[in-house]
Amino acid sequence: MANDKIKTAVFPGSFDPFTIGHESVVRRALDMFDRVIVGIGHNTTKTRFIPIEKSLTEIQKVFEDAGGRVIVKVFKGLTVDFCKNEKSRYILRGLRTAADFEYERAIAQTNKVMYPDIETVFLLTLPQHTFVNSSIIREIIKQGGDASLFLPAKFSVH
Amino acid sequence: MANDKIKTAVFPGSFDPFTIGHESVVRRALDMFDRVIVGIGHNTTKTRFIPIEKSLTEIQKVFEDAGGRVIVKVFKGLTVDFCKNEKSRYILRGLRTAADFEYERAIAQTNKVMYPDIETVFLLTLPQHTFVNSSIIREIIKQGGDASLFLPAKFSVH
Amino acid sequence: MANDKIKTAVFPGSFDPFTIGHESVVRRALDMFDRVIVGIGHNTTKTRFIPIEKSLTEIQKVFEDAGGRVIVKVFKGLTVDFCKNEKSRYILRGLRTAADFEYERAIAQTNKVMYPDIETVFLLTLPQHTFVNSSIIREIIKQGGDASLFLPAKFSVH
Amino acid sequence: MANDKIKTAVFPGSFDPFTIGHESVVRRALDMFDRVIVGIGHNTTKTRFIPIEKSLTEIQKVFEDAGGRVIVKVFKGLTVDFCKNEKSRYILRGLRTAADFEYERAIAQTNKVMYPDIETVFLLTLPQHTFVNSSIIREIIKQGGDASLFLPAKFSVH
Amino acid sequence: MANDKIKTAVFPGSFDPFTIGHESVVRRALDMFDRVIVGIGHNTTKTRFIPIEKSLTEIQKVFEDAGGRVIVKVFKGLTVDFCKNEKSRYILRGLRTAADFEYERAIAQTNKVMYPDIETVFLLTLPQHTFVNSSIIREIIKQGGDASLFLPAKFSVH
Amino acid sequence: MANDKIKTAVFPGSFDPFTIGHESVVRRALDMFDRVIVGIGHNTTKTRFIPIEKSLTEIQKVFEDAGGRVIVKVFKGLTVDFCKNEKSRYILRGLRTAADFEYERAIAQTNKVMYPDIETVFLLTLPQHTFVNSSIIREIIKQGGDASLFLPAKFSVH
Repeated sequence: MANDKIKTAVFPGSFDPFTIGHESVVRRALDMFDRVIVGIGHNTTKTRFIPIEKSLTEIQKVFEDAGGRVIVKVFKGLTVDFCKNEKSRYILRGLRTAADFEYERAIAQTNKVMYPDIETVFLLTLPQHTFVNSSIIREIIKQGGDASLFLPAKFSVH
Repeated sequence: MANDKIKTAVFPGSFDPFTIGHESVVRRALDMFDRVIVGIGHNTTKTRFIPIEKSLTEIQKVFEDAGGRVIVKVFKGLTVDFCKNEKSRYILRGLRTAADFEYERAIAQTNKVMYPDIETVFLLTLPQHTFVNSSIIREIIKQGGDASLFLPAKFSVH
Repeated sequence: MANDKIKTAVFPGSFDPFTIGHESVVRRALDMFDRVIVGIGHNTTKTRFIPIEKSLTEIQKVFEDAGGRVIVKVFKGLTVDFCKNEKSRYILRGLRTAADFEYERAIAQTNKVMYPDIETVFLLTLPQHTFVNSSIIREIIKQGGDASLFLPAKFSVH
Repeated sequence: MANDKIKTAVFPGSFDPFTIGHESVVRRALDMFDRVIVGIGHNTTKTRFIPIEKSLTEIQKVFEDAGGRVIVKVFKGLTVDFCKNEKSRYILRGLRTAADFEYERAIAQTNKVMYPDIETVFLLTLPQHTFVNSSIIREIIKQGGDASLFLPAKFSVH
Repeated sequence: MANDKIKTAVFPGSFDPFTIGHESVVRRALDMFDRVIVGIGHNTTKTRFIPIEKSLTEIQKVFEDAGGRVIVKVFKGLTVDFCKNEKSRYILRGLRTAADFEYERAIAQTNKVMYPDIETVFLLTLPQHTFVNSSIIREIIKQGGDASLFLPAKFSVH
Repeated sequence: MANDKIKTAVFPGSFDPFTIGHESVVRRALDMFDRVIVGIGHNTTKTRFIPIEKSLTEIQKVFEDAGGRVIVKVFKGLTVDFCKNEKSRYILRGLRTAADFEYERAIAQTNKVMYPDIETVFLLTLPQHTFVNSSIIREIIKQGGDASLFLPAKFSVH
């Protein structure tokens, strides 16, 4: 049978910030996977808007109710190496738009060359989340706007 | 846990014909799902190139080696009703291109309104299958060309 | 001043059927235009799912509350000729997806060559209507499904 | 009636530089709106190629002939807050390509959540302006090329 | 050297009708190729708007001035077989939009599997021809409109 | 005849790094052109990952076997000026995805306005190279991964 062992998916990203769209993808994936590891990629060449340690603790708060099935970690290096370390053969990603798709496809096909056992599994964002986009949210906050409608209830940017 | 029951995915389509791209998606999905039901939609308003009964038996041959975990069925009516009948909460689809994506998204979001428990799960086709397309294959065969490179080894169109 | 005369927009389409997405675009356009003429294009080479006369009366019911500012008509021939007859210099269209956009752009740029004074004005469909699509709705109804969630309250297909 | 008050559209952007494509969208919009406010967004985190004060005066020159119906302003903060301050319920944007469209849709749908009365109205750029793109123009000027064919006659970058 | 023999490109299509966009692609290709063969595909399952024999003679008129370097032919069967017969290793295609591109890519990659020596060479349509599209033109003519602005001067549809 | 003189194509890019996809496009173009000049654009405002002089010598190694028909050069300024200097009327580009296409079209149409005799000629990347992308490769190398599968055999990044 397929399910003779724990199925773990890695949900990688910069999550700067983590949005209601990200939350929805993780919650829906819990139905298919035993565990989802939210992996916050540590990219030393890009300055974060929300510090990585704060991102970690805020995302953990979002999933306090998930019975330990959502684990949040920071990782350095390649996503595929993180997956190997976590004994996960699934990368989970949400798809919003056609532009997203082309970018995600390039990343996923590159990952499969570097780690042929990996499978990237895509869920759609919900229609009402299609436009929710971390870079637009960062811009709103920088301009002094209120972005709370786009963030999980328990996720605070301040 | 997520996997306390049999996980069944429905892979719906017209499969006219079933291609190496379709085969690859089903085989990779067997890793995540306990069973995959290939559902050949019976559309009374469209004339098929390969008769539906022949499609059924040919696709069954392709998965003879799958230990009974791939089931091939013909269905009438809505895909979501077929899923309910089969007690499946997952629709499996392959994604090739951005144009595919926009069409698949509309179908998937419509299905979710009609059956909120359904989740459409997308896998990518492999890079070497991106251009493999049932309507182009039909055209090749109609023009007298040899399409066997695009069809599973055990799938015969004649 | 720009608004020294009655501003009329033509909203052309086959509306087979007219959806909640279409309704939303027309209602929002009433804010910018004095009148919106819903123009049901009569295409003799395509068989309609909902007869054109029924479409006319059903769409009229949808806008009974619009104080006469939404007029529903059937037209034959080119959209630009219909606009000229109606003394409208605006074509109104809703945009859902990138695929929509490319098609709409070709139509709009062709219309502008044939009638340089015409301007096509685009509104976005709302996020929750992005996937609402007449051809998918027709398919649902043909397969015996319930499409009422995608149709205006007063629009009946039977 | 719809036109019982002054209709003002805000045309926001960085306009670095303002192109013949931008000019064409504003001029065509004057037919639908009583006034168009060209709003140059002041983004403190991005370095401009053309200083914002120079952009303001150059764009004003472009519309000297518009009888005061085109107003050019610099704004800080969110576009929707600028629209509220200017008592405008319309954001005007030009669409060139499918890639543009996806980005514009995300911005417009985000704006509508933050200010539900706002409506983003899209016009197409003319076919001969489809490829005219501020970032390509900046690159041409930086490389010592002559970009005057892509800029309004009265707009000087020097 | 590359050019030690006659370089022939095949420009295949249904050309129903042949447009100013098609003409422009062929004329520009004459600069790179010694000969261009316009190949009108004979598809027995699709009804043509302009009969294939009339298409042949009308396209021949368009290129009367080309010094015999543009040859117009009707072909049956696969495009790659036509190329082999004509000793051409190049398929010429024009690209207008992103939607075009995805379709053309699938066809071209399929052709390359069936005939590895073939190379599909793409030129862009000119900006002012981007929206010129045979199916829109057919619709204009069917609706009684004047499509002559989109057709080569010497190409008559009547 | 078309081929009465040497046909030279310029293949411009930043090539940071040069990939197996780039190599494949150049090799296939040698069939159509007498010479291909790989032009590494020197952009003073962007920091390179691989220094430009190293890029030059590494790309030269890749084409040591090309009988002198591939020439590698660094250029400053506009691509069209480089083409004029090299007496080339062809710009060669590879196309991978729909997103690529829209960007390439804008560049190519801008170039044609600035130098009407230029023609941009597009070849497709092979299916197995569609996802190979310099910016993803840079990221892999920065994260300590092995990118050699995506680089020409003779191209070393160290």
